[in-house]
Amino acid sequence: MAVAERAHTPINGVAVDQLFATVDAVKATPSIAKFKFQITNRWNTGSQNCSTASGFSGANQELGHPHPFSLLADEPAILLGKDTAANPVEYLLHALASCLATSSVYHAAARGIRIDKVESSFDGDLDLRGFLDLDPAVRKGYQGIRARFKITADAPDDQLQEIVRLGTGHSPVFDSITRGVPVSVSAERL
Amino acid sequence: MAVAERAHTPINGVAVDQLFATVDAVKATPSIAKFKFQITNRWNTGSQNCSTASGFSGANQELGHPHPFSLLADEPAILLGKDTAANPVEYLLHALASCLATSSVYHAAARGIRIDKVESSFDGDLDLRGFLDLDPAVRKGYQGIRARFKITADAPDDQLQEIVRLGTGHSPVFDSITRGVPVSVSAERL
Repeated sequence: MAVAERAHTPINGVAVDQLFATVDAVKATPSIAKFKFQITNRWNTGSQNCSTASGFSGANQELGHPHPFSLLADEPAILLGKDTAANPVEYLLHALASCLATSSVYHAAARGIRIDKVESSFDGDLDLRGFLDLDPAVRKGYQGIRARFKITADAPDDQLQEIVRLGTGHSPVFDSITRGVPVSVSAERL
Repeated sequence: MAVAERAHTPINGVAVDQLFATVDAVKATPSIAKFKFQITNRWNTGSQNCSTASGFSGANQELGHPHPFSLLADEPAILLGKDTAANPVEYLLHALASCLATSSVYHAAARGIRIDKVESSFDGDLDLRGFLDLDPAVRKGYQGIRARFKITADAPDDQLQEIVRLGTGHSPVFDSITRGVPVSVSAERL
C-alpha cells in the first residue's frame, strides 16, 4: 500500500492509522492476512432461499459478527418468484459495487485523498436462453457488466479516474468476477 | 430445458407450467430472453455503503420490484468497519449460494424431481496481502471457493449429485464467477 502521509485522524471515515498498523502487522506476520469468509444457505421454496453470515476466520483466529446477518433471495414474478427480495444476480452486482466503493475509499484514504461522495450505478446483461438451455452458444452468466461512478472530491479530474482505478486495482470482488474463481461443489444426503 | 413431463401443479414451489410456457415463449420470440439487471449504490462513510435494487428490464419491457430492496454493506471491526452488515465478499458467496439453489430447484422441477430440503455452506479463501499490495504474487480476489450441499429428496444418491449438477450447469452466478465477466468502469464528477 502506497503511503502519502501517516494520518492520525480518519480520512473518508477510514481509521488510516489502524490501516497502516494493519499493513505493518501483516509485514511482520504474513499469516495473519489469511481470511476465510463463509455463509450458510437454506432453501425455503421455489426461488426463495436465505443465507446467514455469522462468522469468519482471519488473523489466525475465529471471528464473528456481533449478530448473524440474514440475506434473503427471491426472483421477480416474471421469473416465477414471489419478489420478496433481490435476486441472486442483483446481489452479485451489489457485491461488486460495494467492494469497489470500499476499495476505492480505503486506498484513497491511505494516499491522503479526501472523498466527499461516491454514487454508482451497475447493470449487466443476461440472456435467459442460456439458463433455459435453448442455445448452447449463449452463456448462462452475465455477458458484460457496466459500472458508472460519480464522485465528489476536492481533486482534479484525473484524480477522480485514479480513485476509481484504486478500486478496480484492489477490490477482491472485482478481481474475483473479472478473472474468475475456481469453485468446488459437493453434495450429500441431508 | 429437458422435459420429463408437463406438470400443472407446482414442483418444489416452482410453477412448472409457467416455466414451460416461458420456454415456449422464448422459442417463439428469442428477444424476450434478454434481461438487464441493475442496482445503484451510495457510499455512506468508510466501509459502509448501500445498494438499491428497484427495477430491471426483460421480455422487451421495463420492470420493477414491488418496492426497492436496500442492501447495506459494511466490514467487520478487524477490517476497520462498524460491522453493521455483511461485507462484499460475503455477499458474493450469498449471490453464488442463492443462484445455485434456485437453479438446481428450477431445473429439477422441470425434470419432475421433487426436493424436500436444500442446505448448503460456502467458504472462500482471501489473502489480504493482495488487497494491501504487499505481495504482487497474491491475488486480490478469492483464491478458491468451496460449496457443500446437503439435500433431502426422494431420490437415489446419484440423483442428489445430478440435482447439484443441474445447479452448476445452469446458474448465471456460478457461470459468472467461475468463468469471469468483463466489467467496464467509468468515472465522472458528481
